[in-house]
Amino acid sequence: MTKPFSTVGLMGRIADPQVTEMAARLAKQLQGAKVEVYGDEALGLPVTTGVQVLPDKALAAKADLMIVVGGDGTLLKAAHLISARPIPLVGVNLGRLGFLADITPEQVQDDIAAMLKGDYTQEDRMLLQAHAQCAGKDEKARTALNDVVVHKSDGGRLIEFETFVDGHFLCAYRADGIVIATPTGSTAYALSGGGPIVHPSMDAITLVPICPHTLGDRPLVVAGASRIEVRVGDAHGGSAQVTWDGQHAETLNAGDRVSAQRAEKRITFIHPRGYDYYKILRSKLHWGRGGHSS
Amino acid sequence: MTKPFSTVGLMGRIADPQVTEMAARLAKQLQGAKVEVYGDEALGLPVTTGVQVLPDKALAAKADLMIVVGGDGTLLKAAHLISARPIPLVGVNLGRLGFLADITPEQVQDDIAAMLKGDYTQEDRMLLQAHAQCAGKDEKARTALNDVVVHKSDGGRLIEFETFVDGHFLCAYRADGIVIATPTGSTAYALSGGGPIVHPSMDAITLVPICPHTLGDRPLVVAGASRIEVRVGDAHGGSAQVTWDGQHAETLNAGDRVSAQRAEKRITFIHPRGYDYYKILRSKLHWGRGGHSS
Amino acid sequence: MTKPFSTVGLMGRIADPQVTEMAARLAKQLQGAKVEVYGDEALGLPVTTGVQVLPDKALAAKADLMIVVGGDGTLLKAAHLISARPIPLVGVNLGRLGFLADITPEQVQDDIAAMLKGDYTQEDRMLLQAHAQCAGKDEKARTALNDVVVHKSDGGRLIEFETFVDGHFLCAYRADGIVIATPTGSTAYALSGGGPIVHPSMDAITLVPICPHTLGDRPLVVAGASRIEVRVGDAHGGSAQVTWDGQHAETLNAGDRVSAQRAEKRITFIHPRGYDYYKILRSKLHWGRGGHSS
Amino acid sequence: MTKPFSTVGLMGRIADPQVTEMAARLAKQLQGAKVEVYGDEALGLPVTTGVQVLPDKALAAKADLMIVVGGDGTLLKAAHLISARPIPLVGVNLGRLGFLADITPEQVQDDIAAMLKGDYTQEDRMLLQAHAQCAGKDEKARTALNDVVVHKSDGGRLIEFETFVDGHFLCAYRADGIVIATPTGSTAYALSGGGPIVHPSMDAITLVPICPHTLGDRPLVVAGASRIEVRVGDAHGGSAQVTWDGQHAETLNAGDRVSAQRAEKRITFIHPRGYDYYKILRSKLHWGRGGHSS
Repeated sequence: MTKPFSTVGLMGRIADPQVTEMAARLAKQLQGAKVEVYGDEALGLPVTTGVQVLPDKALAAKADLMIVVGGDGTLLKAAHLISARPIPLVGVNLGRLGFLADITPEQVQDDIAAMLKGDYTQEDRMLLQAHAQCAGKDEKARTALNDVVVHKSDGGRLIEFETFVDGHFLCAYRADGIVIATPTGSTAYALSGGGPIVHPSMDAITLVPICPHTLGDRPLVVAGASRIEVRVGDAHGGSAQVTWDGQHAETLNAGDRVSAQRAEKRITFIHPRGYDYYKILRSKLHWGRGGHSS
Repeated sequence: MTKPFSTVGLMGRIADPQVTEMAARLAKQLQGAKVEVYGDEALGLPVTTGVQVLPDKALAAKADLMIVVGGDGTLLKAAHLISARPIPLVGVNLGRLGFLADITPEQVQDDIAAMLKGDYTQEDRMLLQAHAQCAGKDEKARTALNDVVVHKSDGGRLIEFETFVDGHFLCAYRADGIVIATPTGSTAYALSGGGPIVHPSMDAITLVPICPHTLGDRPLVVAGASRIEVRVGDAHGGSAQVTWDGQHAETLNAGDRVSAQRAEKRITFIHPRGYDYYKILRSKLHWGRGGHSS
Repeated sequence: MTKPFSTVGLMGRIADPQVTEMAARLAKQLQGAKVEVYGDEALGLPVTTGVQVLPDKALAAKADLMIVVGGDGTLLKAAHLISARPIPLVGVNLGRLGFLADITPEQVQDDIAAMLKGDYTQEDRMLLQAHAQCAGKDEKARTALNDVVVHKSDGGRLIEFETFVDGHFLCAYRADGIVIATPTGSTAYALSGGGPIVHPSMDAITLVPICPHTLGDRPLVVAGASRIEVRVGDAHGGSAQVTWDGQHAETLNAGDRVSAQRAEKRITFIHPRGYDYYKILRSKLHWGRGGHSS
Repeated sequence: MTKPFSTVGLMGRIADPQVTEMAARLAKQLQGAKVEVYGDEALGLPVTTGVQVLPDKALAAKADLMIVVGGDGTLLKAAHLISARPIPLVGVNLGRLGFLADITPEQVQDDIAAMLKGDYTQEDRMLLQAHAQCAGKDEKARTALNDVVVHKSDGGRLIEFETFVDGHFLCAYRADGIVIATPTGSTAYALSGGGPIVHPSMDAITLVPICPHTLGDRPLVVAGASRIEVRVGDAHGGSAQVTWDGQHAETLNAGDRVSAQRAEKRITFIHPRGYDYYKILRSKLHWGRGGHSS
């Protein structure tokens, strides 16, 4: 039998001793399973682990599975770092169960052992690709796993912007901003803004206005193949900005545009056998813990 | 050139003189275009129009295009009446623009003339099919264009029900009810319950809890191929009921189930050339008429 | 020192052995404290407890403190039963902490002991008084601690109704219903309908439309002295009903009206010293248990 | 009969020729009514009007009625400028009807004429007073007619903050921000964030979290006499800021606090006789224009 994964990379939330300790435990388990292990330089794995450390890009180039220790935010960062190469990601959480970091410390040893034997659930998730056109000039396109957000900047009270879907005018919003979310992102910022939960298997883009100044403005779900354009109008008392997964930001001025569409590449997650999206949903959203009026 | 439609049926909101008058005008136009015209018996077309009237089922069996005069509700009823045969529907509104009844009185003559020449936009919409299982016995399956709704009945304060998607437990709701909506239905009752707008081209089912007693319960969008099951638990102080497009109802008791999934057949609408879903959305939702704080 | 309470009544959720057992424990403690104890007939206290049982009205006439074992719903029922006489209520919960039933089984012995010594927090809550005017005839006025709700009845899809505040037209709703809530009721059904939390000390009435078919319809908070009138218009496909705390219902037809205003009398609750409304709120609403995107 | 107002000031949205023209018309009417008229320097009234212009502070010191031409935003600015002296304000809108600017161009001549004869409705509105405590040092207190908002600053994804009411811990929010609103402000930014409409006559403060990352976080209405404190915790990836009516901003860092409470002084508005708050509400919120599913 060939091993499904022969070279595994370890990443994690930096400057967190608990993460480093968990990574060291995982390294030992992987070495015991005769798997080649490399660690992210930033993870601070002690020399005594015998794990060779690499800068993140070199790590991503070498590994054919990346185990990430931390929360959903850490996994999001890792997804960006390895985006150049389509290797699967596994998330190990240390605190609360995450949507993406869905292996618990209690289960991690068994789950990883099973995965190394090929016993796992694989899942592809859609990515967004978006670029800003500032002063008529196309800026660099970037990808997002959760969302591309156009938001008022500091000092402004609201922005006005026009939104287009496949070239059709959707509406002119007066709002704090707009979230353009993947199904993965539907349980992140978009949910705070009143958006629906969209099952991660769906090929869909969700548009959620943030604090719209017109009460009828409601979240909209469109086909994954749609091309979204947001044109910034007046940003009252300030400028606007566009962010990708909350990790990179660019300033927008009146007249600038943001174009977003489904990226060609997708990202792959590996889950333990028996992965149940709805179970995670119930846990994260406190479903079923009794209602307020019970 | 062959005519795209050679036999046209006329239906409309009954007992409404304005509808009868509009239908008579349409009949004259159609006759002038050498198209065979039949009218719904219930429409009350005067004999002087020379239109042969038929009971609705016979009408649906004969026509290869059905023009419906009235609002979205009338179109919904017509869709149910003709559901046995996949003929396209056209909606003419007499009052407010509808999502489905999207031809205005001002445009009706030109739009119908263009349609008779084959100049129109055709659109297929997804239907739901659902049946109740009461006391273990399968009731008749029915289709819905908008939604299948499980709701508490008179006298009860709330119902408890468990929801499953493709056999996976989603959650146990304590609520007034739950809406299982098609994309078409996303702008009907589901929207009142806080659901998102889902573009009608999407293959998706939306679940919207009505007045959930747990604040985290949120609308969920799943793939159109999903099988939804709702199991009624305790209906506090009363029973529950399931309705199809608000037009047919069945009583549910504790232990009864409702199963819903995408119907095999779809329904076809004919729109005037240049049909713009977002334009109708803006009009119906008062988008862009200025915000509350402007 | 005079005892603050010399005669205590015991009520509770009926047909629940745990409640009966807790009531028996409380009876013993009260007897030990030389307090006269009476039990609600329906509670099923065993003869061996030596507690004299009375029908609820006689019980309410005799006691100067009523201890109620059960959840918020049980306390609500007790509040209705004793409404003729302004004696304070204490709520002991057996399961989840309640907004009203705020003494836990772990604390009950100490809390009751302290209360019997006069060491407690007393709080008055506003009540609503409402009556229907059906076919022009005034029906009996009833009080509500939580809310007066006008709701569509079975079979109907929505109702239309006009709402007036102090004789001023507020708006014409097309909705499933409307909740007229006290501050106490703001965390009950009104919250499910999207209403705000209103601190129980406030003199305010909150109006919350249920599933309004116009997206701009929003909850409204008005002065406690306001007089609210709801006039039922067309109840599409059925009738409507008005309920008081979900415990009494009357049928409404087109043209009928419901008038609601602050009741003259108030209800008094006794809480353990150190009672903290916000703490209960956090517990009931799962505040601070980590967000969905953390 | 003594005149109710003998000295009237004119203010308005600056750099707007329509505003200047309306102000000139008003000046002529006022002069004709033998009322002393002064104009805001910034308004650009032509010399030919014979109106003496003054800097805004001098203007506020002289007038005993201030007529403001523009929208609600302009009236808000004027309210801040004249806050040192409790003179009544009248708002004349040029475009859409405002909540505060409630005299229409069609009615302005008659309404002002009636007001000068003492025929008007006077209304006092509550103000908030708030100050930041940055690095342990009390900053200057400022007043707000609408709201005091603590919001994440540019670059950050969310802030964490703890909220206290009268010294009692309410909750720890993870959100974009929190709005502390007066009843007047309940129809401004607070409404966009999901807050209720609070009648302007009420003595109440509304707390509305903006995009809370916990779904149970809901708007809260507390007594007007409450003291609100917001302590900024971690502002992820950036700092926070506090704004007063969106017109003045101060930067907040982790550990800084904002204290808000009802101001001692109130602001007075003059409305035309027959002023109807609910009518304005219906107009601004598009109530009654037909529902989305009609």
